[in-house]
Order: sequence, then C-alpha cells, then structure tokens
Amino acid sequence: MSIRIGILGYGNLGRGVECAIRQNPDMELAAVFTRRNPENVTILTDTAAVCRAEEAADWKDKIDVLILCGGSATDLPVQTPEYAKYFNVVDSFDTHAKIPEHFAEVDAAAKASGKVGIISVGWDPGMFSLNRMYANAILPEGSDYTFWGKGVSQGHSDAIRRIDGVKDAKQYTIPVPQALEEVRKGTNPVLSTREKHTRECFVVLEEGADAARIEQEIKTMPNYFADYDTTVHFISEEELKRDHSGIPHGGFVLRSGVTGWEKEHKHLIEYSLKLDSNPEFTSSVIVAYARAAYRLASEGQTGCKTVFDIAPAYLSAKSGEELRATML
Amino acid sequence: MSIRIGILGYGNLGRGVECAIRQNPDMELAAVFTRRNPENVTILTDTAAVCRAEEAADWKDKIDVLILCGGSATDLPVQTPEYAKYFNVVDSFDTHAKIPEHFAEVDAAAKASGKVGIISVGWDPGMFSLNRMYANAILPEGSDYTFWGKGVSQGHSDAIRRIDGVKDAKQYTIPVPQALEEVRKGTNPVLSTREKHTRECFVVLEEGADAARIEQEIKTMPNYFADYDTTVHFISEEELKRDHSGIPHGGFVLRSGVTGWEKEHKHLIEYSLKLDSNPEFTSSVIVAYARAAYRLASEGQTGCKTVFDIAPAYLSAKSGEELRATML
Repeated sequence: MSIRIGILGYGNLGRGVECAIRQNPDMELAAVFTRRNPENVTILTDTAAVCRAEEAADWKDKIDVLILCGGSATDLPVQTPEYAKYFNVVDSFDTHAKIPEHFAEVDAAAKASGKVGIISVGWDPGMFSLNRMYANAILPEGSDYTFWGKGVSQGHSDAIRRIDGVKDAKQYTIPVPQALEEVRKGTNPVLSTREKHTRECFVVLEEGADAARIEQEIKTMPNYFADYDTTVHFISEEELKRDHSGIPHGGFVLRSGVTGWEKEHKHLIEYSLKLDSNPEFTSSVIVAYARAAYRLASEGQTGCKTVFDIAPAYLSAKSGEELRATML
Repeated sequence: MSIRIGILGYGNLGRGVECAIRQNPDMELAAVFTRRNPENVTILTDTAAVCRAEEAADWKDKIDVLILCGGSATDLPVQTPEYAKYFNVVDSFDTHAKIPEHFAEVDAAAKASGKVGIISVGWDPGMFSLNRMYANAILPEGSDYTFWGKGVSQGHSDAIRRIDGVKDAKQYTIPVPQALEEVRKGTNPVLSTREKHTRECFVVLEEGADAARIEQEIKTMPNYFADYDTTVHFISEEELKRDHSGIPHGGFVLRSGVTGWEKEHKHLIEYSLKLDSNPEFTSSVIVAYARAAYRLASEGQTGCKTVFDIAPAYLSAKSGEELRATML
C-alpha cells in the first residue's frame, strides 16, 4: 500500500511536492487543500481531490502525511502545530532564528496527538544543515562557510518590488568566486558580508519612474542591500519575462579543518547544490522526509524531529539490505 | 564522565584515532591493544595503557567502545564479530562486495552480546555512501558518479611494489577533469573506467632493474592498471621520500537528476573531500561514530548498524537544542 500524502497550500512548493510524489512509486497524492475556492484550483494529478483547507481534518484517516506548503512568516507557525493534532506533518519552516520556538510548539502538539512532525526540511535549513552538522562532528577543529547562489532570492526581489516606481524585479545572490577559492585553499579567511556575496538586480520601471533614485534606494536599503556590492540593471518587462522567469538557486557548504597530533594536516569538506528550480528541489527533499515521517510514526514514535534526528535510511524507498548492497 | 575508547591495532589508522580522540573533549583513550610486544609500541597519549591484543577482553568493563583498526582483507572479518562479544565496536571494513556478509556476522555477534557494532565507517564506505544515499532519496531520477582522488591508493602502490625489480612505489589515482566537468554540466555522460580516472606511478628501481620491462608490467597489469591511462615515472629513493611520503586522498560524489512534471528541471548535488591525510580523516569519522555507538548502546540498542542507520545528531557532542539553535 502506498503512502498517502496530503498537500496544504498549492503554490510553487505545493506543485513541487505534487511533481516529486510522481517520482516516488511508493507514494500517492490523496488530496490538495487550499484556501482558495477549490473550483478555481487545477492540479496536475487526476486521481487526487482538491478540497477547502477547512476540510483537512476530515481526511485524518485517509492521509498518512500532510505536507505544509505555506510560508514561514505567518502560515507555518500556526499551521504546523495545528495540523499536527490530526496528521503526521512535514514543513519547510526556514526562519532560522525562530526554529527553537517552532520546534517546541510542534513537539508539544505532536506528542499530545501521538503524531510525528518534521520541521525545517529543504536545503537550507535541511541538506545544508545536515552537511554543516556532519562536517562539524567529523572535524571538531575548523571553520564553517556557507555561500548561497547563484540564485533568486524571493525576499530581496520582493523588497525591490516594494519601491515606488518599480513595476517588477528579480534579484540574484551570487557567491564571490575569490572568497570561495580562499576557503578551498584552506587559508580559513575571515570574510565580511560584502566579501562573500554580491547582489545583482534586474528591474522593470513604471513608466516615467526615476531610475537614478530607484538605483540609489536599492543600493542603500538597510539589511537587504547596503552591506553588499549591488549591481542594478534596468530592463524591459519582456526581457525580465524572457531571461529571468526561472527560480534557480544553490550554494556551497564548506568546512575546513585540521587533524593530527600537532594539527599538521588540513582537510576540506565541500557540499554544493546547483538547482534549476529551488521550490522543486525543496519539495523533493520534503517528500523524502515525508517517507521518514510515515515510517517513524509506524514505529510508534511521536513528537517533533528535524533532519538531525532522522537516520538516513528512513528517507529511502530501498530496504536496509538493498542500501548496504548497492550504496554503502 | 567521558566516553572511554580502546584502539585495537596501532598503525596509521590507530594513530589517527588517537589524534582524533584528543580533539573530542568528551572522549578519552583508555588503552591501545597491539599484536606486537607492547614494550616496543610507543603511543602519544600519556594516560593510556598499551596492552597485548589477547588481553583486550579483560578490559570489557573499562572501555565503552573498541575501535578496530585492522585491515579489511583478513583482520576485520574475524576481529569485528569476535570483539563484538565484549565491546561496542566500530570498524572501517571497506571491501564493498563483502559488506552484506560482514554485516550479518557482526549483527549476530552484537545481538547475542547486547552490544552495538558499527561497520564500514570512514569516507568510502562512509561519508561518500551517505551522500550517495541522501542524493538518491532526494532525486529518484538521476545518475550517480563517484570519482576518487587525487590521492594515494595503497592497494595499487602495493601491486607495483610486488613487481620484480621495484624497490618502492607510490601510486596516485586522479579524476579526469573533463569527465567531472561533463557531469557537472548535467549531460549525464556514460563514462568508461578509462574516462573517469588516470593513474600516475612513482617508482624506485632496484639497482640494475629493467625500467622498460617494469613500466610495461605496470601498464598491462589486469584489474589494477590495464583499463586506465597510466603514467610511470622512475625516481630516486630520496625523491620518493621527499615528494611522496604523504597519504593524501579525496574525491567527489555527484548526483545529477531531474524534477518537474515533465522532468524539465535539472539539479546537481556534489559532495567532495580534499584530505591531507587519508587515515586521519577516516579516523575522525570513526571517532564521531564511536560517540554514536556509545549513545545507541546507552539507549539499549543492539546489533550491527551502518552510517545509514544512525541519526546524524548521535555523532555530535552538542545537544539537540544546541544543534537546532546553531546549525539548523
């Protein structure tokens, strides 16, 4: 019998989850829950239902794992603990500073209901976190580096769009190649924000808008751009659509460390991702962890987990025997 | 109280474990067991004992985890199941084809004694296996690539040393840069053995040996060199000692896969290691898994485990709270 998945929220991430389920024959999409009118939501999977978000609890015996595809700012802090009352849940909560608080909320709800909740799944937090943790456990003496990009930052693109006179915009975060090379050489550089990443912006202006003023506003925007070397390109709406409609991303996690009685040997561990579609890759990670949620719950485990708490084999459709014979 | 570690076998790997323990304040080296005369074995740790291998069982209440540092060919198939009768054990068994058999033997012994045995720990098998497995679970449709090097292959160096007229030798395995680049581009190339790696040999001849015959013997040696583009350099003993006495290694694990309803998006996951000292890095991984063995045993778990079966958090000296707050 396959693992029955529900999706709450049908945006880029929800659609990505739907696509990922199709690549995993031991899973099936049972239903998509939406806050929109279900009649206006067309999904790709013929065999799945589209329902109102409020009906989700009625599906508690027909869904093994509910994947929460809302945003971290306002949706997930409420939704994940709420739906953990009825379902094993997986989310991609990515507000790093608030993870401890979110963990506590989901843990309490999931323990009370006897369900499993896996939070902060994706690539950062997620696969990048795992690689930071493994590398730190292996090389206790060393330095950590995370670089993001080249990729589209939704938050930074939105910040530009909020500027008066901007019709549309896309912002790319780009690692500085020289900084990456220094880290790889094992020189353990101390890198400022500016030295690690540059920001490149493609902006479509409203008719008659003042380009110079907007460029200045972008480049001096605190938190978002002021601490970076930022480039601004003004382009047409057609160019933005033609050249910048994808959602690529990726990045690098490195740990540079030493071993030996006198710390005489250097080592470099590097993990990198190059992703055509940020939401689809995130979804693919989430779906693997949905399998883990199902299995952990089948074993009688309850409460909140993160990627740190889950043995890798739980993610794979293969048995332990198969994994040892083919991948070890 | 710190985790008390024993080391069986004091070669490069055993010394590496000793150095790694020093970098982990929650661990201490209790004793080194050797098949040599303990009087002739000098270790680096003042506070640890050096004992005969036959005495190891007497230490069963004074050691939490015994790390087996013998070879995979003849030592570990016997030692790991044997010592799992008395200790939680960790080994670096690396004969990939015989892992299922070794697992079964260690599992039976460890279940009978109520101990935990973790096998095949290191970087390949070990961290490379983990990365293959995670990447396959995340991207079910894709291709796997593992490249080794640049690094010293002990087995290939030994094979050259066995040739008549060879005094000493060092062999480097080197990934072919163009092959790596093709994989990174996402073209999913089908690569022959020859297209993936080259082999470079540094050979010291016995006086009067026939260089041309030896070069020919190396280049045509079945399994070891015949399927590769092999370069042979004849150098002096001094040069070998001066330029080739290190034991560097490393490599790359890549998975190139697709997502999307029509498989329209490509993704690349890459993990790489660049190691000054192969045995010290392997030891560092083993010591992190020794911590896991101790904790799993403390929870009452028994039997054989591999890196696939162990939740990442068990490797870290940090608590779950600390990990979530600092690394997620």
